[in-house]
Amino acid sequence: MSSFVVALDVGGTSMKGGLVTRSGEIVLAERRATPRDEGPGTVVQVIRSFIADLAVAGGGTPAGVGLAVPGLVTADAALYSANIGWRDVPAGDFVSLDVPVMLGHDVRTGGLAESVLGAGREVSDFLFLPIGTGIAGAVILGGEPYGGTAGWSGEIGHIPVFPAGETCACGQVGCLETYASASAVARRYSARAASPATAEQVAALTLSGDPLATEVWEDAVEALSLALATYTLLLDPSAIVLGGGMSEAGRTLSDPLADRLRARLTFRDAPPLRPAALGVNAGMLGAALLGWRAAGVPDAGATWSSDVLKSSRLA
Amino acid sequence: MSSFVVALDVGGTSMKGGLVTRSGEIVLAERRATPRDEGPGTVVQVIRSFIADLAVAGGGTPAGVGLAVPGLVTADAALYSANIGWRDVPAGDFVSLDVPVMLGHDVRTGGLAESVLGAGREVSDFLFLPIGTGIAGAVILGGEPYGGTAGWSGEIGHIPVFPAGETCACGQVGCLETYASASAVARRYSARAASPATAEQVAALTLSGDPLATEVWEDAVEALSLALATYTLLLDPSAIVLGGGMSEAGRTLSDPLADRLRARLTFRDAPPLRPAALGVNAGMLGAALLGWRAAGVPDAGATWSSDVLKSSRLA
Repeated sequence: MSSFVVALDVGGTSMKGGLVTRSGEIVLAERRATPRDEGPGTVVQVIRSFIADLAVAGGGTPAGVGLAVPGLVTADAALYSANIGWRDVPAGDFVSLDVPVMLGHDVRTGGLAESVLGAGREVSDFLFLPIGTGIAGAVILGGEPYGGTAGWSGEIGHIPVFPAGETCACGQVGCLETYASASAVARRYSARAASPATAEQVAALTLSGDPLATEVWEDAVEALSLALATYTLLLDPSAIVLGGGMSEAGRTLSDPLADRLRARLTFRDAPPLRPAALGVNAGMLGAALLGWRAAGVPDAGATWSSDVLKSSRLA
Repeated sequence: MSSFVVALDVGGTSMKGGLVTRSGEIVLAERRATPRDEGPGTVVQVIRSFIADLAVAGGGTPAGVGLAVPGLVTADAALYSANIGWRDVPAGDFVSLDVPVMLGHDVRTGGLAESVLGAGREVSDFLFLPIGTGIAGAVILGGEPYGGTAGWSGEIGHIPVFPAGETCACGQVGCLETYASASAVARRYSARAASPATAEQVAALTLSGDPLATEVWEDAVEALSLALATYTLLLDPSAIVLGGGMSEAGRTLSDPLADRLRARLTFRDAPPLRPAALGVNAGMLGAALLGWRAAGVPDAGATWSSDVLKSSRLA
């Protein structure tokens, strides 16, 4: 068997690709743009070239290919993505080589990586919650992402936390995402401030006592505490793993969030909040796990050391 | 092997016991009071006598015993119940006979019965939601109830649907249960009306156009639609199975609830709402399944016909 797999994390603006060995070493990593504006056919072509180029760079045929893609997805096909625009793309269309391929949902594949290699390594049932431009979660049960009946699970960004609140881009009212995503924090601050700011800047302004930033930040924390209390009451997780751009605020986010979550639960303890361990590489590392699963190595990752991961972090 | 198991559904006010054959026939059913006021020791004693009496009535030693109990529970012990007051009662303490025993959580055991025998027979992933004096759900995944990390899953009655709303008995604000349980509907109507009414009467008054009843009923429906939209977005179930006293209102509840749930979901369909099939017997029938599992017959129930169930409904 070949010594490496090709792993690709396909996002709406860019794709992260890599060659990952059976022992978890990332021997090559590269980023390319996702040509979303040129239509789904071009995106599929560019993915196919990217995978072929990575395989050539690896010096041979990979043992398998794993892809993390957005939207509705099975292991064998990318069924639908509003973001990219494709419908019913078989896994084989992404790969010109005759090698086994496995697809996974982008957030759930990141959650798989956190489960097997990262912040969820010691627990089996948790929520992986990357908070970035949008918010979607991966429901991890028994160590594996749970997709739901049709692959639509984990849409925590659109649960109604403030039913009398602001209108979300999805058309509903009071969704978590419309208060607590990085773009929502930036948007809500900038709409009322003299000059615009990013979520990172709003976090810094909050620390320095700026009243408007504090208000916007507290709304985000309040919305997250409602969503996480709800998740905890429904699913009784061991932990909540926070990732994405917003989690870069560190304790500026997690300290008040942990306090409010605890205060919202009376008859049970709050699960601990943990920072995600794999950062922006979670999706690509999860795709590598899928690639090794496709190659018939389902327990890949169990032996990957966190040192290997640390040393192989992408720049 | 003996031809029957003893099944017991232990509630806070009464217990439903039965003898159930391997083919699913309820050959005997009996109800006794739960002497909660006399303390947990007495409750355990009364359960033990009840089980012994049922076994004698069956004419021999049962193949197994299954018990559905409230609170925190494993298959081997009733760990904690605020309602009954016990702590760490081993399964063997409930049974004086030397037969295998299996415990289950009351709501989840009812959900197991609906999954194996009832409204969830054709689907594998659904929410069983009995709405009675209180509200708790059973998260059914892959046909089996999911308990969470520590047995606290399914507490949907206490998710914050109206975060700026009324205070719940649990100490939190805006919990589903404080708007949508049968007791909440009766309490909220009676607090404002000239004369008190039960939830059933409020449902009837709503149908006849009474404005106060309509307002209270719509609050309940609104609260439920928020909770079910949240559940749907998080877990993507195949169906939602409504049970308990409130569901006796039939389409007075399910029609407006289905409409509002649909309206709350933009980018995905709403799961169908189904009435529970087993009524007040769900817990006892689930306990019978546990009894057969304890006896080494894990697939009991698969062959039980719905005719048998219909003919064996308790009075």
